[in-house]
Amino acid sequence: MPTEPSSSEPSYRPTGRLPVAVLGATGSVGQRFVSLLADHPWFEIQALTASERSAGKPYREACTWLQPHAIPQAVAAMELSPTEPEAAAGCRLAFSALDDRISGEAEEAFAGAGILVVSNSKSYRMHPRVPLVVPEVNPDHLDLAATQGYGQGGAILTNPNCSTIGLVLALKPLVDAFGVERVHVVSLQAVSGAGLPGVPSIQAIDNLIPYIGNEEEKIEAESAKIFGTLAEAGDERRIEPAGITVSAACNRVPVIDGHTLCVSVGLGRRAELDEVRATWEGFSAEPQHRGLPTAPAKPVHILEGDAVPQPRLHRDLDGGMAASVGRLRPCPLFDWKFVTLSHNTLRGAAGGALLLAELAVARGLLER
Amino acid sequence: MPTEPSSSEPSYRPTGRLPVAVLGATGSVGQRFVSLLADHPWFEIQALTASERSAGKPYREACTWLQPHAIPQAVAAMELSPTEPEAAAGCRLAFSALDDRISGEAEEAFAGAGILVVSNSKSYRMHPRVPLVVPEVNPDHLDLAATQGYGQGGAILTNPNCSTIGLVLALKPLVDAFGVERVHVVSLQAVSGAGLPGVPSIQAIDNLIPYIGNEEEKIEAESAKIFGTLAEAGDERRIEPAGITVSAACNRVPVIDGHTLCVSVGLGRRAELDEVRATWEGFSAEPQHRGLPTAPAKPVHILEGDAVPQPRLHRDLDGGMAASVGRLRPCPLFDWKFVTLSHNTLRGAAGGALLLAELAVARGLLER
Amino acid sequence: MPTEPSSSEPSYRPTGRLPVAVLGATGSVGQRFVSLLADHPWFEIQALTASERSAGKPYREACTWLQPHAIPQAVAAMELSPTEPEAAAGCRLAFSALDDRISGEAEEAFAGAGILVVSNSKSYRMHPRVPLVVPEVNPDHLDLAATQGYGQGGAILTNPNCSTIGLVLALKPLVDAFGVERVHVVSLQAVSGAGLPGVPSIQAIDNLIPYIGNEEEKIEAESAKIFGTLAEAGDERRIEPAGITVSAACNRVPVIDGHTLCVSVGLGRRAELDEVRATWEGFSAEPQHRGLPTAPAKPVHILEGDAVPQPRLHRDLDGGMAASVGRLRPCPLFDWKFVTLSHNTLRGAAGGALLLAELAVARGLLER
Amino acid sequence: MPTEPSSSEPSYRPTGRLPVAVLGATGSVGQRFVSLLADHPWFEIQALTASERSAGKPYREACTWLQPHAIPQAVAAMELSPTEPEAAAGCRLAFSALDDRISGEAEEAFAGAGILVVSNSKSYRMHPRVPLVVPEVNPDHLDLAATQGYGQGGAILTNPNCSTIGLVLALKPLVDAFGVERVHVVSLQAVSGAGLPGVPSIQAIDNLIPYIGNEEEKIEAESAKIFGTLAEAGDERRIEPAGITVSAACNRVPVIDGHTLCVSVGLGRRAELDEVRATWEGFSAEPQHRGLPTAPAKPVHILEGDAVPQPRLHRDLDGGMAASVGRLRPCPLFDWKFVTLSHNTLRGAAGGALLLAELAVARGLLER
Repeated sequence: MPTEPSSSEPSYRPTGRLPVAVLGATGSVGQRFVSLLADHPWFEIQALTASERSAGKPYREACTWLQPHAIPQAVAAMELSPTEPEAAAGCRLAFSALDDRISGEAEEAFAGAGILVVSNSKSYRMHPRVPLVVPEVNPDHLDLAATQGYGQGGAILTNPNCSTIGLVLALKPLVDAFGVERVHVVSLQAVSGAGLPGVPSIQAIDNLIPYIGNEEEKIEAESAKIFGTLAEAGDERRIEPAGITVSAACNRVPVIDGHTLCVSVGLGRRAELDEVRATWEGFSAEPQHRGLPTAPAKPVHILEGDAVPQPRLHRDLDGGMAASVGRLRPCPLFDWKFVTLSHNTLRGAAGGALLLAELAVARGLLER
Repeated sequence: MPTEPSSSEPSYRPTGRLPVAVLGATGSVGQRFVSLLADHPWFEIQALTASERSAGKPYREACTWLQPHAIPQAVAAMELSPTEPEAAAGCRLAFSALDDRISGEAEEAFAGAGILVVSNSKSYRMHPRVPLVVPEVNPDHLDLAATQGYGQGGAILTNPNCSTIGLVLALKPLVDAFGVERVHVVSLQAVSGAGLPGVPSIQAIDNLIPYIGNEEEKIEAESAKIFGTLAEAGDERRIEPAGITVSAACNRVPVIDGHTLCVSVGLGRRAELDEVRATWEGFSAEPQHRGLPTAPAKPVHILEGDAVPQPRLHRDLDGGMAASVGRLRPCPLFDWKFVTLSHNTLRGAAGGALLLAELAVARGLLER
Repeated sequence: MPTEPSSSEPSYRPTGRLPVAVLGATGSVGQRFVSLLADHPWFEIQALTASERSAGKPYREACTWLQPHAIPQAVAAMELSPTEPEAAAGCRLAFSALDDRISGEAEEAFAGAGILVVSNSKSYRMHPRVPLVVPEVNPDHLDLAATQGYGQGGAILTNPNCSTIGLVLALKPLVDAFGVERVHVVSLQAVSGAGLPGVPSIQAIDNLIPYIGNEEEKIEAESAKIFGTLAEAGDERRIEPAGITVSAACNRVPVIDGHTLCVSVGLGRRAELDEVRATWEGFSAEPQHRGLPTAPAKPVHILEGDAVPQPRLHRDLDGGMAASVGRLRPCPLFDWKFVTLSHNTLRGAAGGALLLAELAVARGLLER
Repeated sequence: MPTEPSSSEPSYRPTGRLPVAVLGATGSVGQRFVSLLADHPWFEIQALTASERSAGKPYREACTWLQPHAIPQAVAAMELSPTEPEAAAGCRLAFSALDDRISGEAEEAFAGAGILVVSNSKSYRMHPRVPLVVPEVNPDHLDLAATQGYGQGGAILTNPNCSTIGLVLALKPLVDAFGVERVHVVSLQAVSGAGLPGVPSIQAIDNLIPYIGNEEEKIEAESAKIFGTLAEAGDERRIEPAGITVSAACNRVPVIDGHTLCVSVGLGRRAELDEVRATWEGFSAEPQHRGLPTAPAKPVHILEGDAVPQPRLHRDLDGGMAASVGRLRPCPLFDWKFVTLSHNTLRGAAGGALLLAELAVARGLLER
């Protein structure tokens, strides 16, 4: 499965900053998009959309800003538009942080208007014609977008659930090197993943909640799609899900940012500890090769020491875009156990979607 | 494996309150012993021991009391003794909350002086002549104590590690009904389990630590011993470890009290969801049948609802002596997944040891 | 200002358990009422009310139970009624945990139906004909209820804001002994005071919020009313506010239960440290003298040591009904500084209202 | 009190990066020094010292790194020296993050060896010949250093306690514009201020501690010295403490970084709300005028909105070097109440000391 661009494959780069829209800009993922786009070399925010209730207000007023740095000057006074395709007139690209209740219809409308929608919502992740892509893992799945038929370059691309991304990043080198057959994952997920208002503090202090609605199903299904094979039969392209059995158990813990996963993995062939480490050490993929602006220097950092990774110490590695792994050790029931951590609102949401958009641009999806 | 006393087996009860000693009374487990013994119907604190540095001081002064109720009047002014057998003169029973660095030698000295030592420390848990007992799970293992040969009734009994207890309580009915072959457990453990000073707050706020020293090994080894079989061969008695493969991954999370375990279990024979529930529902064991003072009404509570058990809401069920289970659902890799919770300093430490002492008294160990 | 009943004043006690209603029973204060009334010697829950949306459902189903013990058996299956006076048919007494948006109208309707409403909501606290009473502080203000004119014994009694109660309890002995002229109070308040959903966890972990809407104004105004004088002029009775200047600054901190107040106080006359301590030590008031069931043994506990009171250790003293004080020391700007703590949903809400109802019954308000 | 350099006063800038030492480099403040110096334009770490136990080890191994970014490459492998002046051979400047138990003797030894010691420890803060300086507040106090008489340019300069710094930054413009006579401050301080191990997590979750040893005394005394006047009488120079009465009450709350202060202030002359705001808005001082590398763009940020500042959102303004203020409102007992926040380990410790060193270099203290 070639994930590196052949040297003959051109990488497109915008000549100026492309105007983009952020759909659902006031929520916590929307705020992350706004932050990350503030100084982005390829993209420039031209439009921000919100619910009817907030439309017409300046961004600064409509939004309860929760980021640990000020609202970017360029957008603070920008007027919010209703979430309709007219809002993105002049934009070829839109980032969707829309609530799942409205994302389905809205994203389709934007794609129908010829806009490339890079979505962090769950509506189309499992749709057979919609690519569900982690740029280091399955960039070729982007080809599926051509089957959508929106015309004028319109399409929908999706980013996985925040807890899936860290898992598949850590597994990707193992899948390529040894094959992976069975994955048991228990997550300890941060509260920022629940958005706002999210988990009431009375349930998050001196407590944890051993349940996140539909999260286990998402991890199990999305992983199989992401590691699946893009099959072509005549005119038809589709994803054959991978033959990996995943069992997930999800917990919400009192951590602000950073999902920690305790993983046990059964490999396709026997591998020594040093081999497993070496695959992680050597892991580099298309975003790194193309030099995409938001790509982490290393997709996976191996941490030394007993008690790592820890959310507060390691979630921000490579700008919050890298996963970290630690505690690789034998598992009495599978082959290996390890812990992996990734930033759920950066790599796991807005940052991951941004990297996906960069990949799509570099692969020429806006040129079609 | 008969765990219920036959109707003909007598249950001993003290006629008055037996004088007891608490070894290592100033630490967090020691404080729990002191609390639980304050109004105990069978036992009465006669001696408290501490390190040389604290010996001679009144208990109230030497101890940083961390319980959410006042120091019991009867012991507040009691003078601390050094941890030597003379301190327990007149006591037949001693509870040990000693630090692992000194518990080995000290507990042996007390046992040698004819005292029944019920220990929460790890020193002798895996010793071939020392019973490692959870009263609802393997009460018959107490018979192993007779092999120790201390004389005058002296012996050492041990309580498992705080995270093992909840696991084996939840598994016991499944072991008896269906057999259990494989257990995958990921723990989310409270900070009180680390004692004082324990985890620095700078590592516990907005963070978790995916490692607890030796904890995974303890869970794996102790479970096999507890579910093992007491074998007799000539004069020799020993525990044959159970053929259960356990894989544990342990995490420290920002919760004060209550260890939560995410368990996947592979059974010896196929069982439907209703059957599994029914074994938990019907679970009652020797402590309940004998009516021991500290026994929970039900060793395992099945909780209804999606998001349970939660530490803050359910750790105190039946006075902190019951485990609770929830979220029973199929596991794609094993048979069933569920979540279990128990109070780590009550059921998992001082309360568990107290129940064990009650069982030992009821079975007549002090009569020998 | 005599706060102790003269020996000739009779204390009424119900002969059986009086049927009572809890209005707004599903919220967090409502749940506390339900818990406290479960085994109450004088009162028995006959009716529970909730919003239209929940009416008709069993209590267990309509309510997200957040207490650390099970729902009382007697009410778990009780059907919720709409919040209308018919719901309380047969009850002489109702406890109101209603949301401020509906409490005004609803409480008036219940009082108009001849029911004594003991309210924890803010609607009528500052009303000139409604007593705002902390039983140890201003029990005589209950006489104001006679001016309401609802007939058939109907009346509205109110309990102060959760942060006011701890303050006035700690100040009361000083007011009586030395006079109090100036009070500067900075609160560190628990999240349970914000109800549900309350403060989002993303704002409560590794953070605090230096603002609670209207809280500062409530503390300043309510304190003046509570320490005010019941004046009678002809047929007219009213409260003359006390001449105490209070400045409050309120903060929400990541604590589940227990409001901590940093108080500086300027007295009416000079007092030595020992005198101040002695007034707290000797403090006992009408609820203690009458032996009301929910009265704390001591309204104010003086704690020894540098670093006390602490919410987790001291909020539950005397069943969560006592305030605790510590760190009495000179203030360079006022006379004395100290710290006081009280449980905001017990003493500061449901428990305080229950004690107030007991006081009203003992004083014969139901006999009129 | 002129705090701005006259245009004729030269500002010295190093031509290359000056070699510096960090004393006590493994603790939490030491780590912050190491982080901040990693890419510093004027200074370059040449030596790191630690206790005897750690001396000889590589920095990476001896230190439990707790910063949310990796150990700077340049120092990771640097060998730790014992804390003796020889360690700083070739350095003109040393930053001290030494523990208070050893800082007194050690700092004197380094100063005696001709090194300018910029210290974050408390040993010499109140010494009559040692400047206690916040660069925006009392830069002229640096002249006091000339009285120390160490020779060869050796001297000791001190940075205030972490909670004092935010207070005096917020007060400075008010002192200059209106005079300040009385200050009442209640602090809500982060756990990182207690270093390592610091506050045990069992005391920091669902809890707060209303006491920090000697902290109240430090705030009260240090504020008076910092706002004091540098008086010269003959050869003698000394600080006349300011006539400001400060009352402080200090609390430890479950926040990682950022001290929040609730301040009430009595001014020397009446000022309207807009005047107070205007003095903060216009506040700029010597570090800004000299363009020191670590100087915040604005020393004080006025935040709009009800519920600000909040530690997690605002502690990092201007790289953690700015204080923020909010909630300016009248105080019934003083003139004005407000809330101020600053980062305790950046502005309040290592960052503040670094800015102080930059000021000293710019003022030519190394040229003497």
